[in-house]
Amino acid sequence: MALVVQKFGGTSMGSIERIKHVATRVLEEKEKGNDVVVVVSAMAGETDRLINLVKEITAEPNERDMDFVVSTGEQVSAGLLSITLNHMGHSAVSLTGWQAGIKTDDAFTKARILSIDTDRIKNYLKQGKIVVITGFQGITESGDITTLGRGGSDTSAVALAAALNADRCDIYTDVDGVYTADPRIVPEARKIDVLSYEEMLELASLGAKVLQIRSVEFAMKYKVPLRVRCTFTSDEGTLIKEEDETMERVVVRGIAHNKNEARITVERVPDKPGIAAKLFDALAEANIPVDMIVQNVSVDGYTDISFTVEKNDAPKAEKITRKVAEEIGAKGVIRDDRIAKVSIVGLGMRSHAGVAGKVFDTLAKYGINIIMISTSEIKISCIVDEKFTELAVRVLHEAFGLDKNE
Amino acid sequence: MALVVQKFGGTSMGSIERIKHVATRVLEEKEKGNDVVVVVSAMAGETDRLINLVKEITAEPNERDMDFVVSTGEQVSAGLLSITLNHMGHSAVSLTGWQAGIKTDDAFTKARILSIDTDRIKNYLKQGKIVVITGFQGITESGDITTLGRGGSDTSAVALAAALNADRCDIYTDVDGVYTADPRIVPEARKIDVLSYEEMLELASLGAKVLQIRSVEFAMKYKVPLRVRCTFTSDEGTLIKEEDETMERVVVRGIAHNKNEARITVERVPDKPGIAAKLFDALAEANIPVDMIVQNVSVDGYTDISFTVEKNDAPKAEKITRKVAEEIGAKGVIRDDRIAKVSIVGLGMRSHAGVAGKVFDTLAKYGINIIMISTSEIKISCIVDEKFTELAVRVLHEAFGLDKNE
Repeated sequence: MALVVQKFGGTSMGSIERIKHVATRVLEEKEKGNDVVVVVSAMAGETDRLINLVKEITAEPNERDMDFVVSTGEQVSAGLLSITLNHMGHSAVSLTGWQAGIKTDDAFTKARILSIDTDRIKNYLKQGKIVVITGFQGITESGDITTLGRGGSDTSAVALAAALNADRCDIYTDVDGVYTADPRIVPEARKIDVLSYEEMLELASLGAKVLQIRSVEFAMKYKVPLRVRCTFTSDEGTLIKEEDETMERVVVRGIAHNKNEARITVERVPDKPGIAAKLFDALAEANIPVDMIVQNVSVDGYTDISFTVEKNDAPKAEKITRKVAEEIGAKGVIRDDRIAKVSIVGLGMRSHAGVAGKVFDTLAKYGINIIMISTSEIKISCIVDEKFTELAVRVLHEAFGLDKNE
Repeated sequence: MALVVQKFGGTSMGSIERIKHVATRVLEEKEKGNDVVVVVSAMAGETDRLINLVKEITAEPNERDMDFVVSTGEQVSAGLLSITLNHMGHSAVSLTGWQAGIKTDDAFTKARILSIDTDRIKNYLKQGKIVVITGFQGITESGDITTLGRGGSDTSAVALAAALNADRCDIYTDVDGVYTADPRIVPEARKIDVLSYEEMLELASLGAKVLQIRSVEFAMKYKVPLRVRCTFTSDEGTLIKEEDETMERVVVRGIAHNKNEARITVERVPDKPGIAAKLFDALAEANIPVDMIVQNVSVDGYTDISFTVEKNDAPKAEKITRKVAEEIGAKGVIRDDRIAKVSIVGLGMRSHAGVAGKVFDTLAKYGINIIMISTSEIKISCIVDEKFTELAVRVLHEAFGLDKNE
């Protein structure tokens, strides 16, 4: 007998009809003889409805009361699912975040889970009950309701799985797993059956539609096997788990792309210590996260520094960069919003040479110029002109044989 | 400096525009230098929306989860009011029933308040905050969310006022007070400025549109002065408080009517001990509340027994009565759904003779036949043919001079 945590998102819970279908997925697991804890999001559209009510009052509500209001969405859906399960003749009970013992810090609207007191859940499981818990929320030390930020229900599910020492955490969603590339771009993309936490984190931009990154980090930290599967089909989905010896055999696991970044280049920066620090400190102070940073070897006492930020942040980042550039006597600042990041990811890169060369050759063969390069042990990312995004993904997908069975 | 509990109903909280208006009523009280605790209902229509979602699943949901779902309505409105007050530059905080320390029994959907732990509320008040609390709900010993039944927010407000030893509990609603009669029937009806708890309870059918009866009983028990006033006007409303020496001077305080009862008469019942008990035990067993009971003196060893029940219960009550009538050898059973109860209420009746006579004379003068009569120390109720309801109310209102100033 296993303990399984299941998480259902807002689309899966989007209507009474769908909640009834979710109930059948819960019962499938229960009828295997497993203990089942279910974590649910608010019904699709409900959180937005609540936020819009608040926005009618003010664009800047106090965040404690905001969480107080918004957390009700999951309470409704959890209650409805429990009512459905009970109506179908099974014993179920609904719990809010605080009833489930989920303690968080007091960073309202984006709280972090500190600990989970699982006594009450375990008691219900011992009584044979299915326990339905509101995702996305918890309670502070002083008894205030918090939310974990958008998509936080995935984190709730993984944290509960970790605290309960569950055998598996299944994230049910409207896609049937993680793919070798975005299937809308590469029709030959295959569903990945199994991959490691590290690979999943690097494939963030594929997984972001499916999984909140924080929940993968959490699962990795606590070694909770995570499965992404579809609410509406019986496909086994994608399993994300600890690296094992078979995994390194696959050189490239998948290809991710991201059109949501912009590049900023500072030209002819005097190559003196502390210059880069000055720039990135200023950006950090303005709360602008920087993704890739590339600086070339200086040839004549001057160097170029390029970095990427989210497109939303680009205008503000450019302004700050111009100010710093002036102070440090750089020649100028160029901003380019029409770029894309294409990344190939795979544990096998660690032990296989020549992967980078093959990436560059492949892109060159199709006339795709590489603007920036950044690598990690299991990833190679290239910044290319935005117009080449789909082409780059497709030719790399083919070059590394991702359309063929592993 | 006083402590005032204010309660706003669903109509008052029906939209963001209205919630903003409610905020101004709260601030009026706060700006007098008073401590203010606000109890709110769900936005009009919201509780029904939630109930309808549940009814899509089943007509008989398990009640624990039902309360889990339905209690969110007040959480949203309390949060929205607190956001509004904070946005207007005042310090406010929203609390759920459990956060406010409202402990109830576990009779889900109709729980009763057992105790209130006011520490948290008092702490916030000490900090100068306006405390906004969800009406209609509490928590059981074992940490389950309960609701108090429809209209329970009035009870929440009065219970909080009692527990906090508040100087007053103001119930804001969409009418401006309790009237000497229903103004839709008697245009000359006057708003009553002040009356006693006992009178208010007897005038239930006037007050039911305004106040939940349980909340009046609660206020009476704990001697909390209760004021009914309108959210949308500045009228002082009606004050309901402990009887004082001036109150008995008014013989008749108001006239109530109720068209929602049916009469059942058992004809020619053998006048033997235990016969009435047999009938009313059977009705009690079927959970049918009986209002008036009239039995005349027996003349020839037989008597007639008449009683009234709610119209909804009448068919079931008739069936039970017919069965008992057969068993006890009564002649027959008559049911009449077309009756009305007209009651005059006033503390002064205790010390003024001739009130009953005046009621009977007045009705007789207008050809209104009295079917049943029932009296208490401060009330005379007559059952009349339904078609005379409005006429009876109007002529009694005039006969006792209720259209004139006290």
